[in-house]
Amino acid sequence: MGTTIVSDEIRQRILTYFENQAQRHGLSAFTVDRMAKDLKISKRTIYQHFPTKDAIITTFMDSVKHRIDEHFGAMEKLDLPASMIMIKSLKGILDILTPFLNQGISDLKTLYPEIWQSLVAFRKGKFDQIFKLLRQAQTDGEINPNLNMNRLAYLLPQILDELFQPEVVFHPSHASRDMMEEVFLILFQGIFTGSTRDSFPQLLKQQAE
Amino acid sequence: MGTTIVSDEIRQRILTYFENQAQRHGLSAFTVDRMAKDLKISKRTIYQHFPTKDAIITTFMDSVKHRIDEHFGAMEKLDLPASMIMIKSLKGILDILTPFLNQGISDLKTLYPEIWQSLVAFRKGKFDQIFKLLRQAQTDGEINPNLNMNRLAYLLPQILDELFQPEVVFHPSHASRDMMEEVFLILFQGIFTGSTRDSFPQLLKQQAE
Repeated sequence: MGTTIVSDEIRQRILTYFENQAQRHGLSAFTVDRMAKDLKISKRTIYQHFPTKDAIITTFMDSVKHRIDEHFGAMEKLDLPASMIMIKSLKGILDILTPFLNQGISDLKTLYPEIWQSLVAFRKGKFDQIFKLLRQAQTDGEINPNLNMNRLAYLLPQILDELFQPEVVFHPSHASRDMMEEVFLILFQGIFTGSTRDSFPQLLKQQAE
Repeated sequence: MGTTIVSDEIRQRILTYFENQAQRHGLSAFTVDRMAKDLKISKRTIYQHFPTKDAIITTFMDSVKHRIDEHFGAMEKLDLPASMIMIKSLKGILDILTPFLNQGISDLKTLYPEIWQSLVAFRKGKFDQIFKLLRQAQTDGEINPNLNMNRLAYLLPQILDELFQPEVVFHPSHASRDMMEEVFLILFQGIFTGSTRDSFPQLLKQQAE
């Protein structure tokens, strides 16, 4: 029997390798065999850290969720109107996800339906946070007065749920980031009014801060 | 053997009865037995005009499509900018469909999937017409310059397809007409600019002309 080495350093190397692979080639190309070869460690060592391939993916997704949560938390602390916090929070999600928005990652929903479902649940939680900010923006007089907030509360998650599906976002002839920006532009320029509406396109396209 | 009477008048009475029933009680409550009793004609007579219940529904749906086509045709002839023709065409669809937007009709998709599919195909054709008007509106400088028309051409039918599903439109605590108006308000106020954008809410709520 060989020596069992379970270390944070190897764990981190595995996760970093996975992140690079997911960004470059997506999920379907990822195998533990290939990872062992590329990282020059044994499959046994990999399985000592992560019992299954799913465990690697789940751990990685948890770290992405954590980044998004941290971003939301940081934005909430800014001394800005709710509308701006909302826009910057959404932009943060786009920025965090953009490196992974390739055709390869589009297989997540079909290859790993349980992991996909956990992301859907996470997204619902974020919608709730977004909607609280929208309510505040309404109090601040920044929401299109023709809209009814109760209907909006029901429709907006439906729209976003339906649109942020691999089948929609991963289009052969449009970049996914551009598609997601277009959805936000339509929706939020339809929802906001005045200067918030006018500043939205520029804020969305700004380089990550 | 009784006398066979196939007449336009009876055919029309059957269709009018069906329309009233669909408006008041929806589709699941509709039976040929009940129709025969209410119209004081035999089931045999009904089946001489329409061999199946599905045939009644299909014929009725064809008449609704015909009304929508006629409305689109009439709007196209108006001497108005493309944006206005588009808005008035969409409003016409809402006005034609509003009497049927009740919980009962929401069963169409599950009870009569083939008829539903034919409506989905019809809707796609209307989207194409709407999109031609949008392209013209863009030429006229009435479209939000931050939007990319190619992406919009792809996204807009996706959004409308996903939203105009019974599961979304027939909500227990919101009127369906209000829900559909809200969707149009968000989307088209996000898409249009200037005076078109400003006049949109009022146009949508105007009484049918």
